[in-house]
Amino acid sequence: MSKKKVMIAGTFDIIHPGHIFLINEAAKLGEVYVIVSTDKNREKYAGEPPIIPQEQRLEVIKSLKNVKKAVLGRSDNNTLKTVEEIDPDIILLGPNQKYDIATLKKGLTARGLDNIEVIRLKSFYDKFELNSSSLIKKKIIDTYTK
Amino acid sequence: MSKKKVMIAGTFDIIHPGHIFLINEAAKLGEVYVIVSTDKNREKYAGEPPIIPQEQRLEVIKSLKNVKKAVLGRSDNNTLKTVEEIDPDIILLGPNQKYDIATLKKGLTARGLDNIEVIRLKSFYDKFELNSSSLIKKKIIDTYTK
Repeated sequence: MSKKKVMIAGTFDIIHPGHIFLINEAAKLGEVYVIVSTDKNREKYAGEPPIIPQEQRLEVIKSLKNVKKAVLGRSDNNTLKTVEEIDPDIILLGPNQKYDIATLKKGLTARGLDNIEVIRLKSFYDKFELNSSSLIKKKIIDTYTK
Repeated sequence: MSKKKVMIAGTFDIIHPGHIFLINEAAKLGEVYVIVSTDKNREKYAGEPPIIPQEQRLEVIKSLKNVKKAVLGRSDNNTLKTVEEIDPDIILLGPNQKYDIATLKKGLTARGLDNIEVIRLKSFYDKFELNSSSLIKKKIIDTYTK
């Protein structure tokens, strides 16, 4: 039997062990396909663009062990179209990614993608203090502007 | 014939494609062993500690493709002792790492490690604009303090 395709998505602005944990947990379920948010989509979603431009974020993600393939997402917010292209068996959400599973499942079903399993990673990786891109940015600002 | 051991060293505070390029170039020469500077040593050397604590930097480096093994350096500045422990065939320096090859060779010879080849990577990876940890930090500060 061929391995399952596991999809994860994110901005991955400053790589930290929380990202790596998500990727490694995904790898336990199958081969990991990563959608890296475009600058434009991130800006729409978060109100501000990422610090690192999309091509550079993509290059870093591609260099991580356990990443089978990484691609940029779309700029038109039509995330389900990218999901359709990747055609995963499983979508793994991070513990604090703001997608609602029920809404996502509904969208998938509307597109005939109801065979995709959606799972949320429950455990939050808190071995290190700076376990989010925001916390890293905050520390940089606090360090250099005091 | 077994593969050559190629050693690189650095702080790797915020991972960027320049780091990945160095690792991938090292991998063309053999198996890549990485020494990650301790917070203390980095502070001695650069006048300020890194933003990301050493264990977290180590964890990110370990997760990169082409990294065979990564270890923390020492806190006593005795880098040659770590080199001795790793016992590489080649030391690959980054294009702007401030080690002088002649001085390094002299230190290696004094320790009986004169069989180690020291090479400097000449090409600088400038595909992306934010190709140093400092530039990334600067952009974060500029973005959030304007």
